[in-house]
Amino acid sequence: MSLLLNGLAASSGITIAPAHLLVESDLSIKKQHTADENHEVARLHDSFTLSKAELQQLYQHAHETLGQRAAAIIDTQIAILDDPTLQTKIIDRINNHHDTAEWAVKKVEDYYLNIFERMNDNDYLHSRATALRDVTKRVLSHLLNVPLPDPALLDHRAVFVAKNITPTDTAQFDRRYVAGIVTANGGRTSHFTIMSKTLSLPAVVGVKDATALIHDGDTLIVDGIHGKVIVNPSNEEIEHYRLLAGEFAQEQQKWGALKDKQTVSADGRRFEVAANVGTFADIIDAQEDGAEGIGLLRTEFLYMNRDELPSEEQQFLAYKKFVSAMNQQQVVVRTLDIGGDKQLGMVKLPHEDNPYLGFRAIRIGLARPEILRPQIRALLRSSAYGRLAIMFPMIATIEEFQQARSILDDEKEKLEKAGYQVAKNIEVGMMLEIPAVAVMADHFAKYVDFFSIGSNDLIQYLLAVDRGNQQVAYLYQELHPAVLRMVKRVIEAAHAEGKWVGMCGEMASNSLAVPLLMAMGLDEFSMSSSQILRVRSLINQLSTRKLQPLVHRAINAETAAEVQKLVKKYVPELKI
Amino acid sequence: MSLLLNGLAASSGITIAPAHLLVESDLSIKKQHTADENHEVARLHDSFTLSKAELQQLYQHAHETLGQRAAAIIDTQIAILDDPTLQTKIIDRINNHHDTAEWAVKKVEDYYLNIFERMNDNDYLHSRATALRDVTKRVLSHLLNVPLPDPALLDHRAVFVAKNITPTDTAQFDRRYVAGIVTANGGRTSHFTIMSKTLSLPAVVGVKDATALIHDGDTLIVDGIHGKVIVNPSNEEIEHYRLLAGEFAQEQQKWGALKDKQTVSADGRRFEVAANVGTFADIIDAQEDGAEGIGLLRTEFLYMNRDELPSEEQQFLAYKKFVSAMNQQQVVVRTLDIGGDKQLGMVKLPHEDNPYLGFRAIRIGLARPEILRPQIRALLRSSAYGRLAIMFPMIATIEEFQQARSILDDEKEKLEKAGYQVAKNIEVGMMLEIPAVAVMADHFAKYVDFFSIGSNDLIQYLLAVDRGNQQVAYLYQELHPAVLRMVKRVIEAAHAEGKWVGMCGEMASNSLAVPLLMAMGLDEFSMSSSQILRVRSLINQLSTRKLQPLVHRAINAETAAEVQKLVKKYVPELKI
Repeated sequence: MSLLLNGLAASSGITIAPAHLLVESDLSIKKQHTADENHEVARLHDSFTLSKAELQQLYQHAHETLGQRAAAIIDTQIAILDDPTLQTKIIDRINNHHDTAEWAVKKVEDYYLNIFERMNDNDYLHSRATALRDVTKRVLSHLLNVPLPDPALLDHRAVFVAKNITPTDTAQFDRRYVAGIVTANGGRTSHFTIMSKTLSLPAVVGVKDATALIHDGDTLIVDGIHGKVIVNPSNEEIEHYRLLAGEFAQEQQKWGALKDKQTVSADGRRFEVAANVGTFADIIDAQEDGAEGIGLLRTEFLYMNRDELPSEEQQFLAYKKFVSAMNQQQVVVRTLDIGGDKQLGMVKLPHEDNPYLGFRAIRIGLARPEILRPQIRALLRSSAYGRLAIMFPMIATIEEFQQARSILDDEKEKLEKAGYQVAKNIEVGMMLEIPAVAVMADHFAKYVDFFSIGSNDLIQYLLAVDRGNQQVAYLYQELHPAVLRMVKRVIEAAHAEGKWVGMCGEMASNSLAVPLLMAMGLDEFSMSSSQILRVRSLINQLSTRKLQPLVHRAINAETAAEVQKLVKKYVPELKI
Repeated sequence: MSLLLNGLAASSGITIAPAHLLVESDLSIKKQHTADENHEVARLHDSFTLSKAELQQLYQHAHETLGQRAAAIIDTQIAILDDPTLQTKIIDRINNHHDTAEWAVKKVEDYYLNIFERMNDNDYLHSRATALRDVTKRVLSHLLNVPLPDPALLDHRAVFVAKNITPTDTAQFDRRYVAGIVTANGGRTSHFTIMSKTLSLPAVVGVKDATALIHDGDTLIVDGIHGKVIVNPSNEEIEHYRLLAGEFAQEQQKWGALKDKQTVSADGRRFEVAANVGTFADIIDAQEDGAEGIGLLRTEFLYMNRDELPSEEQQFLAYKKFVSAMNQQQVVVRTLDIGGDKQLGMVKLPHEDNPYLGFRAIRIGLARPEILRPQIRALLRSSAYGRLAIMFPMIATIEEFQQARSILDDEKEKLEKAGYQVAKNIEVGMMLEIPAVAVMADHFAKYVDFFSIGSNDLIQYLLAVDRGNQQVAYLYQELHPAVLRMVKRVIEAAHAEGKWVGMCGEMASNSLAVPLLMAMGLDEFSMSSSQILRVRSLINQLSTRKLQPLVHRAINAETAAEVQKLVKKYVPELKI
């Protein structure tokens, strides 16, 4: 009999393929002594050399296919391998205790882990410990000649099943074979989930006991649309899901035809569906995937893996490249958004008990003009090469927006006086992610050129829930009527002042939210490129006029569950 | 010339007195060896014995005058002193390295601090390190015969000036001599600030470089009403502030006459001014200070300094005592509110990146009915002995309130079947501290008997600011128009359903907020007992009808600064 497991739909699409469990290799070793220390030291060197070569390959792969964030994780591991103290400590053990290389590695690992783990409620150390474990695993795998569970070794289409997929794992994915992903842990907006959306992999996360209930080779249906996993399905189930998957694939094919058309609802209202990007590679994807603009350019990539702040000139060249590449399509650039869960090496931030409620984004920018001003100058200079808009993240008060805006006006004047070309029509807006701003949108709308609703943060503060925290993730509800009321209020306030409103959080690509958002009049939807055509197709099919009663009822609903039912009732054509 | 320093008004009142800096004693020591190890071990024992006796006295003092929280801090230090590993390690050093007792203490302290501090972005370890430092300081002070800067040693009226006042310091205060407090660090709602309000001490916190700009013996005017410190004031300034202080004192005297009257505005609207309490000692204070009820009974004290959860019976006896003591005045009890910044030894909570957005309060209660159910049973049983109301903290969705409510109904039915007496008229409400709930107040109002607005948390989430975080404390704005809009919305929604609304955060006793809150129709103001008569006096003087234009303008203001000006303009009688 088949077994149905429920989880969270993390990335849409349906896949049917055998399960491939990512399980730990047996790297157990015993205390062993040697009489030939030199031989052991030589073996140790070999294992380090092999490990480093592997990691460098992984780094390259991750860097090219998955971006900086995944690559940085591998980089940490290379740094550990290169740390002379670690090697010296192991060699000392071989020479002084006559340990075999394996045993010496194990003892030195234990020594460090012991230090790290005594403090195991510390996140940074936790990640260092994870990295150290991964590195010693790799070294031991060479010493013991036991292969690691390398996702890259998969040579047939399969669904990865694991307790947890770390960025280290995804860095090794071979897109040809990975058919889908099922994890026991993880939430809808974890970094992994966002990454699997980027890869367009059907994924269901938060499937309790997945690794115990699913065995290697079990046939799996992964329904990333509804968040279901069927283990060893019946023939009827396979048939049903093949049909569904086929429909979904057909749908996907139709999407291709939309690329060069405008996004217009069934009743003729025009919308813009744009891309969230973070690197230049993303720009290429965005264009291929039918983006009508860039709704969010994250500028953090310019500041990563560096020892110093990027110069105005370096930033200018980068922004110019982005802006020029998009021709006359708008590129909305967000000024540096660090703090919260994002740290940079070169900007030392204090430890905070609640970083999401702390010193982050524009709060840092206003306190440290030496960071904000060069960025604004670079942005203004690049404005001459395309259609640039600038927005400030985490604005909480009107004073903050005015301060940021006046820094911008000041730099603009200086640049013009110095003879630089600066576009006349730069729109200056803000991220709307703090509840107080939604409440005060009527006033803010007078000062901004546009709002971009950062739904991830907005929902997080509205419901007092850290979306990355497993234990409360159920409270992160994109369809909560309070969220809808706030969004509606913001759109109405902005339109009353003739300003436009975009949304650049996960909610903008949620199929159940899109009908509500378009009917409320959201002007721009910005998302991962892989989601764009699906959303454009959905908008094309729906009439904003006919959806008005749905909006009315959703706004007056009591719970997110009620809203979900309403959307499904009013929009029966919603397959996804 | 006098020097004016600005800070945050942390506790009202004015004081004029000499400065007394709390500075570190010189406990520096050098490496020294001994030939007489036994003598050093004996000295060590003596210093431990003396230190322990001191700490026990401090514990007693703190427990009696400042409550559990301060006492627990001293308790941690006693536990460190009693830790046999620590003593053994020091004695080993004396015996094996021939260290003097001082040097051995120092080396062992270094050993532990080195471990702790390598991980210095961890809060728990940080507090352990602070406690260890305090303990070794005390031990060294006995070995070196150098007195510690003991606040209890103060023998004349003075203002304490320090970088930071820790609960360890306040535990040593002698109320006769401490005239006021000025600190360089700290925010309006830090635990210390709340404590100084409890002690009715004029306090100004967040005075940058206070310890560098103020010298021992400088005459200080501490204006805890406006958040100013004047160093070495002119005679005119002293004269002016003497007058002000006199007026304030006179005002305070008048307050006494209000105790037995009802709180009625100048236009005859009745309000209730209640107390926030956390121990039985607070109940006595509340009655003496003119509380008209208990607006918030925190139940965490029952769970502190224990290894196991308190039994239903233990809780019942405690609640009964509170409820009976208040006669027929209402006692609003909040069910266990842990998580966030409050941890309990016996309920292990996972480490969280953003505890304020995490697993806390009712989220824990619903997930762990073995904690919530006995508390509810105990509360229901105690309801027979007075006028009890129950409220649930951190409700975010209607589903959560319904779940909590149905647990309550279930236990009530069971108790009644088992023959227990349970009051018929128990009001069941909720804390309103999450923005989404304010937005949905119209729906929630149908289900609850009352709301108690937890303004501290509500403001924190509305403005995305951790009120304990120095770097962003300026964004914690009680007068922000978004806060006022939300509060007004909640009151209107509740009144439309015939329900009442209280407020139990710091905002309820903020003189600038009270006129707005009463004019909006807030039914109950709950606060530290020491603030009650001041607020009652203020309410008596003002007419809610005349304040309506102020409310209208404040709600439509753009910034908190604007609201502040408006209140001062419309309420010129506001001295405080």
